[in-house]
Amino acid sequence: MGKFNRIGILTGGGDCPGLNSVIRAITKSAINKYDMEVVGFLDGFHGLVEGNYIHLDLKTISGIGYRGGTILGSSNRDDPFNYPSSKDGKEVMIDVSDRAISNLQDLGLDGLIVIGGDGSLHIADQLYEKGVAVVGVPKTIDNDLSATDVTFGFNTAVDTASEALDRLHTTAESHHRVMILEVMGRYAGWIALHAGISGGAHVILIPEIPYKIESIINQVKRRQWHDKKYSIIVVAEGAVALGGEMVVQKLVPQSHDPIRLGGIGNQLALQIEKLVKTETRVTVLGHLQRGGSPIPYDRVLSLRYGVAATEAMVAGQYGTMVSLQGPRIVTVPIKEAIKILKKVDPGSDMVAAARAVGISFGDEDQ
Amino acid sequence: MGKFNRIGILTGGGDCPGLNSVIRAITKSAINKYDMEVVGFLDGFHGLVEGNYIHLDLKTISGIGYRGGTILGSSNRDDPFNYPSSKDGKEVMIDVSDRAISNLQDLGLDGLIVIGGDGSLHIADQLYEKGVAVVGVPKTIDNDLSATDVTFGFNTAVDTASEALDRLHTTAESHHRVMILEVMGRYAGWIALHAGISGGAHVILIPEIPYKIESIINQVKRRQWHDKKYSIIVVAEGAVALGGEMVVQKLVPQSHDPIRLGGIGNQLALQIEKLVKTETRVTVLGHLQRGGSPIPYDRVLSLRYGVAATEAMVAGQYGTMVSLQGPRIVTVPIKEAIKILKKVDPGSDMVAAARAVGISFGDEDQ
Amino acid sequence: MGKFNRIGILTGGGDCPGLNSVIRAITKSAINKYDMEVVGFLDGFHGLVEGNYIHLDLKTISGIGYRGGTILGSSNRDDPFNYPSSKDGKEVMIDVSDRAISNLQDLGLDGLIVIGGDGSLHIADQLYEKGVAVVGVPKTIDNDLSATDVTFGFNTAVDTASEALDRLHTTAESHHRVMILEVMGRYAGWIALHAGISGGAHVILIPEIPYKIESIINQVKRRQWHDKKYSIIVVAEGAVALGGEMVVQKLVPQSHDPIRLGGIGNQLALQIEKLVKTETRVTVLGHLQRGGSPIPYDRVLSLRYGVAATEAMVAGQYGTMVSLQGPRIVTVPIKEAIKILKKVDPGSDMVAAARAVGISFGDEDQ
Amino acid sequence: MGKFNRIGILTGGGDCPGLNSVIRAITKSAINKYDMEVVGFLDGFHGLVEGNYIHLDLKTISGIGYRGGTILGSSNRDDPFNYPSSKDGKEVMIDVSDRAISNLQDLGLDGLIVIGGDGSLHIADQLYEKGVAVVGVPKTIDNDLSATDVTFGFNTAVDTASEALDRLHTTAESHHRVMILEVMGRYAGWIALHAGISGGAHVILIPEIPYKIESIINQVKRRQWHDKKYSIIVVAEGAVALGGEMVVQKLVPQSHDPIRLGGIGNQLALQIEKLVKTETRVTVLGHLQRGGSPIPYDRVLSLRYGVAATEAMVAGQYGTMVSLQGPRIVTVPIKEAIKILKKVDPGSDMVAAARAVGISFGDEDQ
Repeated sequence: MGKFNRIGILTGGGDCPGLNSVIRAITKSAINKYDMEVVGFLDGFHGLVEGNYIHLDLKTISGIGYRGGTILGSSNRDDPFNYPSSKDGKEVMIDVSDRAISNLQDLGLDGLIVIGGDGSLHIADQLYEKGVAVVGVPKTIDNDLSATDVTFGFNTAVDTASEALDRLHTTAESHHRVMILEVMGRYAGWIALHAGISGGAHVILIPEIPYKIESIINQVKRRQWHDKKYSIIVVAEGAVALGGEMVVQKLVPQSHDPIRLGGIGNQLALQIEKLVKTETRVTVLGHLQRGGSPIPYDRVLSLRYGVAATEAMVAGQYGTMVSLQGPRIVTVPIKEAIKILKKVDPGSDMVAAARAVGISFGDEDQ
Repeated sequence: MGKFNRIGILTGGGDCPGLNSVIRAITKSAINKYDMEVVGFLDGFHGLVEGNYIHLDLKTISGIGYRGGTILGSSNRDDPFNYPSSKDGKEVMIDVSDRAISNLQDLGLDGLIVIGGDGSLHIADQLYEKGVAVVGVPKTIDNDLSATDVTFGFNTAVDTASEALDRLHTTAESHHRVMILEVMGRYAGWIALHAGISGGAHVILIPEIPYKIESIINQVKRRQWHDKKYSIIVVAEGAVALGGEMVVQKLVPQSHDPIRLGGIGNQLALQIEKLVKTETRVTVLGHLQRGGSPIPYDRVLSLRYGVAATEAMVAGQYGTMVSLQGPRIVTVPIKEAIKILKKVDPGSDMVAAARAVGISFGDEDQ
Repeated sequence: MGKFNRIGILTGGGDCPGLNSVIRAITKSAINKYDMEVVGFLDGFHGLVEGNYIHLDLKTISGIGYRGGTILGSSNRDDPFNYPSSKDGKEVMIDVSDRAISNLQDLGLDGLIVIGGDGSLHIADQLYEKGVAVVGVPKTIDNDLSATDVTFGFNTAVDTASEALDRLHTTAESHHRVMILEVMGRYAGWIALHAGISGGAHVILIPEIPYKIESIINQVKRRQWHDKKYSIIVVAEGAVALGGEMVVQKLVPQSHDPIRLGGIGNQLALQIEKLVKTETRVTVLGHLQRGGSPIPYDRVLSLRYGVAATEAMVAGQYGTMVSLQGPRIVTVPIKEAIKILKKVDPGSDMVAAARAVGISFGDEDQ
Repeated sequence: MGKFNRIGILTGGGDCPGLNSVIRAITKSAINKYDMEVVGFLDGFHGLVEGNYIHLDLKTISGIGYRGGTILGSSNRDDPFNYPSSKDGKEVMIDVSDRAISNLQDLGLDGLIVIGGDGSLHIADQLYEKGVAVVGVPKTIDNDLSATDVTFGFNTAVDTASEALDRLHTTAESHHRVMILEVMGRYAGWIALHAGISGGAHVILIPEIPYKIESIINQVKRRQWHDKKYSIIVVAEGAVALGGEMVVQKLVPQSHDPIRLGGIGNQLALQIEKLVKTETRVTVLGHLQRGGSPIPYDRVLSLRYGVAATEAMVAGQYGTMVSLQGPRIVTVPIKEAIKILKKVDPGSDMVAAARAVGISFGDEDQ
């Protein structure tokens, strides 16, 4: 194990509570236990390609475990295999992976730990195919990775969304309104499901269970008949109507006014307000779900992931990523791990439990 | 004081953390100390006009002090002096204040306590002019009432907004973004000012200090020059550009897609993104600021307000509202109290202090 | 399944965040899905023996899901098989289980769901042996039950303890002190382990790893040498010195002054203060760990447990308790479930991870 | 104003949330607005006497505003006018104030800002008498300073205590217990009063209102008669029985066992348990009240204090301390400011309000 004198770390993709805690755990274990040197590339693969990095020592990482975000920064459009470049004044995408690899060699790095989502991990795997000693740490706030029971950051996001539902409850009740909370989850509805159960939502809409607007309207009306004049709906951004398509959200500057094509939340609000004549309000939680200090659950999980990544590197388990399976942290090949999305199973006990206490998923027949 | 056998309470206007705590304090003190009966009208003045009410006893109010919202409900368009009515199939607005007053008499109520904002308090004062024994409790989450040092709910809203800024900080920093948080404050910027200072904003935009977009851009760029690649902007919904007008936010259904005319936050985002070529994201905090359990500061203040309202009623101080002045709760005539908005003084020590630590208000010359 | 017209619920043993949420989930699913009637016995088995109960309908349980505690109450010394009774003016313990069972029959109850720790579940199992249709829901804040991956309440307790550590950190650092936090965990150190990792403790002491005082002193001194003049120690109440015995904590009234035999925390403080000449302070977290609103993780888990208990009852799985195994809720025989304590494995990856980032367990040789 | 090129800061006395925020505000305003240099003495006056200090620049103070504690450290027994020294192998107390002053001069410091309680401010005033340009910032978590409406840190401590009461509530209720929470407040009961009102205590005991044990017992029993089988008592550490003396809390090592002379909380518990035969439990909140991130209210207040201290220095207002009076920060002579303790007025509207909603102060006749 004399080989590991120096390793590099980078964080890729969207923000997620716990990234700094992973960085700290990798660095501390690498230095304390294996006497390595650790460098951190700045802004994801961008720093790897451009050779931008900082030295990570015990002082640099002191106190970062409780802070959200990543001290290394992150970026988009930084895939070394498809990297923006300028040619004849025009932008073209080229493969600069050799430059990335030669940067690793110039720095004398014996290995690279990539903390990122499926995009970043796919790049990590391609680097591994080209001979780099790579270990991955999975990062997705959506918890939609099959290879691991839970991902760090997810429970912090659920906490944020659940607290928002708590807040909306009282106003909805006082004003007899329908309140809609739009949360993250483009392909999987985990945040909506957990936060909806925890925060006492009356309707939960997730990508895995296409909804019928009539079914939602029925739930709202049924509650009104029982003198519960308000309803709380939590909707994953990727929820779709039966037979419909995902509503894409974007900012379109138009004449003088900024115009915003509303997401699924706003679309639902207009439909519901029209159909049940009840004031309906939407809150889009957005970036608030990605920020903030990780809750204890995620602090513990990210520490375990980080130390396990150092150990996997030392053990020579290249091309793998760390993963929680039951009570244990194991390693799995990145290639297989990123293949399958973990979706909410409509037949699972959790969905059934939610239905049993009266939560609608918008798919019930009357 | 044998006169006070029975009083009524109602809550009017928008939701505000602490309403239930005021209801509890009035009811408990009226029952415990003065052996009164208390009734609560449902949904603000609507319940007074329609004769909808519940009896408030010690059991009804048990445990409500910590819950946001109002167990009495609230409503819009319920002014007894301008009340929606149907005539020949069309809606007309008529004066039904006599019906309201006769409802009070039929119920044997010796007085009415109105918890509400300037709209509701104005109605309360008109009822007082017509002979009703009225006492008011001021309620505005915006803290923009001159007659009182602080209003309940305000510090809870600041807490919510400040926590949101904490969350946005880490993501802004990790992704080198400009993050904009739009908070409440149509005419006064108190929430933006307090939350901005507390949450470490780099720019605070409030109605009282018209901004120049160039000044904001300068602050963002100055930070970038100093290698702080991100900036946090908190903007009150009523903030205006120098020489500009307030941006009105509304939902406009158009063809099949819901379209949302963005508020000031979205407008700023488009301008900034264009002028500094930096990813800019907006979070509209909206109703989250009005919900949730009141923080201890507001629990204490609303309890004091509630008990003081009972005492003012017993002392025969009709036509007044309770108010915090220094360490003391006093009463002031409603008529005078609702006249003047309390705005942020651009020359105050708090604004100066914010500037001294480097916060821009968007009005600086370069 | 026509059989289940009426079931009873009771909660036994110490308080635990999530109890109300389990009660709500059982009741809601029993009523909504199976049209049953539900009664709740008051103060654990005491209510069963004495015939004290309330009807649980949808109104009774409205809004209780977020509240800590149990609306049914709990008690000690209420074992029907060993119940305090008065004979000739003296207290004797007798078997009144037949009375308990006949109460169940008189009320027309088809089954009994017991939410409780190993003591309560053992009683539940004995009732099952005597023919009662019993289903159990495991409850232990200490998370020390082998049959289930996690118990509800545990993560809320970790949250409370972790937040306390966050608070102690700053004071310890400012005043160069050793700060000791004593947390629950008589036989298993799960709370100390998770909170210690999450809250950045420098020493974690748990029953599973006997400590040597010299090893703790070394960690404190090593930190001082590295100019970290403070240390944070989290100690489970059941932690023991190598070769020593558990320190029992009790209140002893003595002459005029109340005297408190300190627990392990105080004992350690005196030793450390003497050996390293550093101000040392102790905080005993105590009951704060058992109270408060359950965090989202526990709200979801307790809802699933509750619904699963109703389903197990309907499916006729008497003598079993519900249990989380991986992503699924299953049932296991109570008899087997309560046999084995789940202790922290000193060789687990979590303990190793903690050591790798420099946390001492007080057992290291120098 | 060319005079102020360099100033020093120190923090004295016990920990208090907001200290770092004051340090940050002084430093930022001194550097940004007046182009000064700032040094921070380490561990209070100890650093001033020994010449231990660090340079405070924008980087040093980056991000400290939200952290509890003080990056400068604090200490006891560091009064330059009564400083521990060694003479003939014995410790004697001597006056080293000249050494402190000459250290200031050697460092070229034009002024010294002292953030501290009455002890530290008294020393500051003595230095001022000897010619040092001193400005004070008042710091007391107990809020017991007459010269200022509120002190920073107080509302954070109230928050912590109130949350603890929320947690104790549910357990008390579930187990029919009397729960006692002992909070800080040796001479003034502000924390107990505010937290007690906010957290729904049934009895509040403060130094300003001597209690009779019979009165407390009556409140507990009265509640039991009304089927409220539990009671919550919050007691300031300095609360005294009518005609009694303050209970002093200390650790006494005795033979092999650590013995703890319980404080007022434990004393009460033993009395109550004996007199009402109800399980009674005590939680001593202790240091938890001094730690943690300041809440927004305190972040804003401490920022204003810090900037005002810089301004007072620049304006030549030596020998004064900054102070909040109504909406404004003013300066008052230290000498007068530290003379009078601000105690809870038993006749104030807040105490009356608490009584009106049924809270006992332990002084009622039956």
